[in-house]
Amino acid sequence: MTAAALLRPRAAQDLAARLARSAAAVGHGDHVRTEDVPGWLAARSRAHRFAVRRVPLDRLDGWSFTPDEGDLVHRSGRFFAVRGLAATVDEGPFGSWQQPIIHQPEVGILGILAKEFDGVLHFLLQAKMEPGNPGLLQLSPTVQATRSNYQRVHEGAGVKYLEHFTDAARGRVLADSLQSEHGSWFFRKSNRNMLVETDAEVPEDPDFRWLTLGQIGELLRHDHLVNMDARTVLACFPMAVPEPGALHSDTELLSWFTAERARHDVDVRLVPLAGVADWARDAEGIGRPDGRFFRITGVTVEAGNREVTGWSQPLLEPCGTGIAAFVFRRLGGVPHVLVHAKVEAGYLDTIELAPTVQCTPGNWDPVRTEDRPPFLDLVRAADERGTAHYAAEHSEEGGRFLEARIRYLFVSADEDTAPVDPPPGYRWVTVGQLNSLTAHGHYVNVQARTLLACLNSGAVRL
Amino acid sequence: MTAAALLRPRAAQDLAARLARSAAAVGHGDHVRTEDVPGWLAARSRAHRFAVRRVPLDRLDGWSFTPDEGDLVHRSGRFFAVRGLAATVDEGPFGSWQQPIIHQPEVGILGILAKEFDGVLHFLLQAKMEPGNPGLLQLSPTVQATRSNYQRVHEGAGVKYLEHFTDAARGRVLADSLQSEHGSWFFRKSNRNMLVETDAEVPEDPDFRWLTLGQIGELLRHDHLVNMDARTVLACFPMAVPEPGALHSDTELLSWFTAERARHDVDVRLVPLAGVADWARDAEGIGRPDGRFFRITGVTVEAGNREVTGWSQPLLEPCGTGIAAFVFRRLGGVPHVLVHAKVEAGYLDTIELAPTVQCTPGNWDPVRTEDRPPFLDLVRAADERGTAHYAAEHSEEGGRFLEARIRYLFVSADEDTAPVDPPPGYRWVTVGQLNSLTAHGHYVNVQARTLLACLNSGAVRL
Repeated sequence: MTAAALLRPRAAQDLAARLARSAAAVGHGDHVRTEDVPGWLAARSRAHRFAVRRVPLDRLDGWSFTPDEGDLVHRSGRFFAVRGLAATVDEGPFGSWQQPIIHQPEVGILGILAKEFDGVLHFLLQAKMEPGNPGLLQLSPTVQATRSNYQRVHEGAGVKYLEHFTDAARGRVLADSLQSEHGSWFFRKSNRNMLVETDAEVPEDPDFRWLTLGQIGELLRHDHLVNMDARTVLACFPMAVPEPGALHSDTELLSWFTAERARHDVDVRLVPLAGVADWARDAEGIGRPDGRFFRITGVTVEAGNREVTGWSQPLLEPCGTGIAAFVFRRLGGVPHVLVHAKVEAGYLDTIELAPTVQCTPGNWDPVRTEDRPPFLDLVRAADERGTAHYAAEHSEEGGRFLEARIRYLFVSADEDTAPVDPPPGYRWVTVGQLNSLTAHGHYVNVQARTLLACLNSGAVRL
Repeated sequence: MTAAALLRPRAAQDLAARLARSAAAVGHGDHVRTEDVPGWLAARSRAHRFAVRRVPLDRLDGWSFTPDEGDLVHRSGRFFAVRGLAATVDEGPFGSWQQPIIHQPEVGILGILAKEFDGVLHFLLQAKMEPGNPGLLQLSPTVQATRSNYQRVHEGAGVKYLEHFTDAARGRVLADSLQSEHGSWFFRKSNRNMLVETDAEVPEDPDFRWLTLGQIGELLRHDHLVNMDARTVLACFPMAVPEPGALHSDTELLSWFTAERARHDVDVRLVPLAGVADWARDAEGIGRPDGRFFRITGVTVEAGNREVTGWSQPLLEPCGTGIAAFVFRRLGGVPHVLVHAKVEAGYLDTIELAPTVQCTPGNWDPVRTEDRPPFLDLVRAADERGTAHYAAEHSEEGGRFLEARIRYLFVSADEDTAPVDPPPGYRWVTVGQLNSLTAHGHYVNVQARTLLACLNSGAVRL
């Protein structure tokens, strides 16, 4: 090999154009029509034997409360644990509090396999059952596996297609970053979000389908068809959106982010679950007497096509449907969304960029009106009048959360409702800027990534 | 203002060329000849009254050991504390251990102010005394301030030029990221590294001088003239090195980094300092009976030009001079350095990219030869024979470390001594790739940033 032949370009030459072409391919792909996908999901559901039943936490097989801390753990010491968290933050009406939190220090893989058919990139999604999903089966990444999972702690069958993600030399990695998940429910969780392209022949399992990015965008206009794990990987697709400019340069945006991360005092530590203030264990689970935030509950699962055929586990069940909305405007002709540098106690580092509005409205009922989230009224009014540019309900990680429903919206604004100079902690960014940040971890939070997935896939065009 | 006038380019248009021009300006700048800078530093030292004396920890004014944990803290609760750390890592010969560690959760500012004189960018550096510096006075950033510091916890004078960094609207931010410091000595410390350009008239204080980037590069060829805080900011200068390609694309490099970060199990927690195993408190400080790693010791300081005129504080005193070296090669005609994805217990997230060799050789004496750091023999041999491409001794943060000397080197290699396919945990990256990563935090560690500062400033050309 000559010396120069060792080199390759630092940036992929044609990837953005190929992704754009795939996003433009709607209606049908090489393998399936979009309109047939919901029926196919229903058929896969019938082909398997799924049953999810609630059970009290002390009747979960393999799970128990530790004698000293009262933490809820699996006998293997793996998977995840429910522990206590004590947090003090310097902003917002909540100040100091304690809560249960899911602790899962292992990094899992969320991977989507890509392959060209007839010159168009297709992505291999799986009809996957998760016990917490509304509807149980949703479209998930090609591979969605915790490390316990793929290292076979539960001694089940191997994870299909895993080799494409653990042995990168088999294909071309198009994206690979560590991304956070819900900072209110997880303690410093992150997963690898991977997009890998292959030229090899790939056998298509009955539970998997190749779809174009445009088809996935069509499906994202439906409620509860595309799961959170697929959405977060879709957000990381390197779209390289062409834009003539932005309200703030990339360096100004990073500088603002750095200042936001530096200015907050956030003190967080794990504490014994047994002593968590304001939460109590009852016959069914763990919750708050005032019914706010969430409960820890248990389920047993019977399934025919999972790595194991049955199991039981705790799940976190949010109280009420959440809202996650980007307020958007065209500034200088270029679409911008209003991001919020949001503190959440479970983040690795103080803040991440969240949607303009991200909350569960019911949790804010006891809070003084002036302390409630900015732009919440704007977003709710648009949703109630049916004037939102996009509105769909999606659910969060069904392997950890039970019926965690969030209403995702894009709401148009103007200088009166959302000025170019927004309140402290908010900033206008272009779609291209938001997308670029997902090449790195811990910038864009998981709710914002669902909204970004809608933009990347063409489910929403601003 | 028209709508389009709102927009600006996402990337700066001519910054890389302007930085390159400044790096090429050597010998003298608009204000001072390079050869006169060491003499000026010595004169500033004489103009002030500096005295640093060792004192036992229990005689430090304002510092005491907490009754329960035995942690060493300041009476204000600010600045920093010395606590205990318990770590378990999955790689290397040390496995599980305990140690004292500096805990400083506040984010400080390290900022360099830039301004054009006669069409060439100059950077305002300060002759600053730090009690732990060999030589006491070194060239530091324009602003080097903890949050306690600039919020005047010690009720001293204001920090000069601070307004350029806290009020970004006064100038143009050219770089601003949160960067880690020493992962073996600090618990999850990070500082803002800022480069800000101004067009305003800036009064030049007697303790400050405007230097070109090339002049700073000349000074980096001397031992102990440019302090660590200046070096880490210099590393973050966005040089945009022109390169025809790289051994690995940027995406492949990020993917490898993600995999390295994901594959390690690192369990770290703060523990009471009083109970830290294998360390003991004696009349003078805290250390290990075997004399390895470092000691915690105390000093009193008298100074005339600091924000306060005298104080006392603990310092961490490393045992022995360290080595930090990049092994480098031209691959396909393009210079590449060999980075190491190194686990350190104090990092925010498991690993950061370190020099090829980073260790204090004495600490490894009791370790089996086959477990010692790869490439250490190569680097030491080149240093002993005087064949290193660059070799200078610099010191680490003199406000926290006492005489923390590291020998920084660049050592040329070939396929026999450092193959294109390196051992696990190592990767060849171009200078441009390493530089790009400093736009974001927690990729490039502080020792690698000193070496990168040498490249950015032209002290070293590969």
